[in-house]
Amino acid sequence: MKVEIIAIGDELTSGRILNTTSAFAARNLFDAGYEIYAMHTIGDSPSLIGEALKRAIARVDAIVVTGGLGSTDDDLTNEAVSRALNRPTMPNLEILSNIRAHLDEITNAPVGELEKLAWLPKGAQALSPESRMAGYQLIHEDKPIFFLPGVPSQMKVLMVDHVLPTLATWHKDHHLTTYQKIFRIFNLPEAEVNRRIATVDLDPDVHIGYYPVFPEVHLSLTVRDKQTNNARRLFKSACKAINTVLGDSIYGHDRDSMERIVGRLLIKNDLNLAVAESCTGGLISKKLTDTPGSSAYFLGGIISYANSLKSCYLEVPDSLLENVGAVSREVAETMAVTVRTGSSADIGLSVTGIAGPDGGTEEKPVGTVYIGIATEEENWVTKFRFSGNRRQIRTLTAQSGLDLVRKYLLQQDLEEETA
Amino acid sequence: MKVEIIAIGDELTSGRILNTTSAFAARNLFDAGYEIYAMHTIGDSPSLIGEALKRAIARVDAIVVTGGLGSTDDDLTNEAVSRALNRPTMPNLEILSNIRAHLDEITNAPVGELEKLAWLPKGAQALSPESRMAGYQLIHEDKPIFFLPGVPSQMKVLMVDHVLPTLATWHKDHHLTTYQKIFRIFNLPEAEVNRRIATVDLDPDVHIGYYPVFPEVHLSLTVRDKQTNNARRLFKSACKAINTVLGDSIYGHDRDSMERIVGRLLIKNDLNLAVAESCTGGLISKKLTDTPGSSAYFLGGIISYANSLKSCYLEVPDSLLENVGAVSREVAETMAVTVRTGSSADIGLSVTGIAGPDGGTEEKPVGTVYIGIATEEENWVTKFRFSGNRRQIRTLTAQSGLDLVRKYLLQQDLEEETA
Repeated sequence: MKVEIIAIGDELTSGRILNTTSAFAARNLFDAGYEIYAMHTIGDSPSLIGEALKRAIARVDAIVVTGGLGSTDDDLTNEAVSRALNRPTMPNLEILSNIRAHLDEITNAPVGELEKLAWLPKGAQALSPESRMAGYQLIHEDKPIFFLPGVPSQMKVLMVDHVLPTLATWHKDHHLTTYQKIFRIFNLPEAEVNRRIATVDLDPDVHIGYYPVFPEVHLSLTVRDKQTNNARRLFKSACKAINTVLGDSIYGHDRDSMERIVGRLLIKNDLNLAVAESCTGGLISKKLTDTPGSSAYFLGGIISYANSLKSCYLEVPDSLLENVGAVSREVAETMAVTVRTGSSADIGLSVTGIAGPDGGTEEKPVGTVYIGIATEEENWVTKFRFSGNRRQIRTLTAQSGLDLVRKYLLQQDLEEETA
Repeated sequence: MKVEIIAIGDELTSGRILNTTSAFAARNLFDAGYEIYAMHTIGDSPSLIGEALKRAIARVDAIVVTGGLGSTDDDLTNEAVSRALNRPTMPNLEILSNIRAHLDEITNAPVGELEKLAWLPKGAQALSPESRMAGYQLIHEDKPIFFLPGVPSQMKVLMVDHVLPTLATWHKDHHLTTYQKIFRIFNLPEAEVNRRIATVDLDPDVHIGYYPVFPEVHLSLTVRDKQTNNARRLFKSACKAINTVLGDSIYGHDRDSMERIVGRLLIKNDLNLAVAESCTGGLISKKLTDTPGSSAYFLGGIISYANSLKSCYLEVPDSLLENVGAVSREVAETMAVTVRTGSSADIGLSVTGIAGPDGGTEEKPVGTVYIGIATEEENWVTKFRFSGNRRQIRTLTAQSGLDLVRKYLLQQDLEEETA
């Protein structure tokens, strides 16, 4: 079953807003076994919207349209649909009364321009009439077309709660069995990943894709087949081969993130972590606390962006800062040790480096980073020389710090197993 | 002059990777005065690529294509272009010798599959032969078509250094004068922005767009005219009207960010800032240090994610944590005051709250946040009750904290002016 995705809005074609809804729709549709024929982004122009819609109806089996459903003057999707598909707009009374009820709660104002939200093309079936942005579905030439709001949070709810279930019962027999896994790789260049995979003798029905997603490389493994058993067999053996050649450079799969993996390993080992961040300025802590439940293994720490904070909170002696400088093995080690002891954490992680664009010297160019780890048994510091711009160096530093913690925890696991 | 943008890659149509290159191209082309006719995303399928390309050639004046230029098996753009436009591929000797030279530096290996990078459709002119991903330009039916790599960092360099300058000299007379400004608004709902703007009597040639970009609302003002003077006059008077009705809810313009604006105001007032973050877990510090040069006004601070860190680094008495809880006015104030004094900063900013999804109570539901500010003259705490998911609550908290600092600094400015 082929699906086309159309995103509407001048804010997208002018590049002011990044189109995230189309990617969300594509990922969910792809995961559910549909083929994405194409994705389009067009401005708030009724003639272009109509043209794209008619072309899609002529060649695919279902269409998802996002954007242009709001109440402001530049929301033109309904008008365009009405004209292109020859379906006059008419008010949806359920939506209208919900708007009225909602307004009554906060004001006595007339419905005014909000009424526009309720005028839908003839035959439209509201997906979620109780929401302010109801969204709707239209069956045209026996093909389902879904119209969803452009605001990502609203769009995503309707996509998951309405579009996917509706499609799932639409053309059951057209489904292919799809097995897919993304291998998330860090600290191994794409060319090396490629070279190692080339040494594996994979079945021609196994499809491998490479995607550099800074600072990682993602490798996708896809097997699609009408025969479930055959697909599963091919998929399992390919997974095993990939794991063998890439080893612990694979830090996770699918929607894993480095910080979640580190969190999972900390919980498994019943350990907690504190950080002392200089050049990353909070990025590592921010990443760790993005995850709900991170308080189970992350205590917090010190952002010692200024040298004065390295002295007052992390006991880095002024003499050390003067003699070897803030970006040094010695300071990284002191930071890791003092944040660990000061916060009574099991593991202390520290980073100090030069993220640029300024601050580099011949001896310590931009990208020079020291990462320290302090544990009950031992402390060690690793030196890196990253290249890239400020954002890239900070991202590489944060990811490398977490990766060092990951590898330490994996080692603990191994030692426990062999003990 | 109309431009169409085509992005190629299975990683995009499956939604695994967010397409950021198309938005980058669109923004830059739009800013330069071109009209974006449409943007398409299609998979690694030569027939679809060819079809999209031929359709675009038939209806627009220039085309930007990204992706599918690499050396792996799933990079099929050149093959598709060759077939669709009937231009056999031939090796570009300059690119080939650069690959050879580059390889010689690191290995004696044969060129191997990298050779694929040098085989371009007949008539192709490499944009940057010295780069590994050279990109190329093709003039077909008197229309320029640019083929750029899909990796955002590589694509962006070629876009800015080659595509825009080439287009600028291509059809000079087709340019419209475009004046555009984005007003970045925080802490004012879209409906209220809309209502206030509706009270202004704007010229019909002035185009206003509203874009909720969580947690902000962006308002775009666009005036396009062949007559430069007329456009400038309309633009200036509309800017003034918008500033008048929206006031200090406009925190910045165009590509400003809240953290940059706060940084600029801190520099202007010769003040520095330290933070104590609980529920935001480093997000505020991360945002502040994203900006190069932030060490001029940001010292760092404490991530007191665990209560134990509030005690050991921020002198929050255990009795206070027991009696009123970590999420309280008293703890927020103590955190702001102690991080300010402990780090010898001019301003201390603290946040403590419940980001969820767990941890809420009837009395203090998820979204309850206290933000404290400590200065030499006074300390105060503001209470918020945000709604949304964990990510949204953290984002709103960070943005609100920075916005409070911004408003304090604006007030300082005013007092200085009236003094």
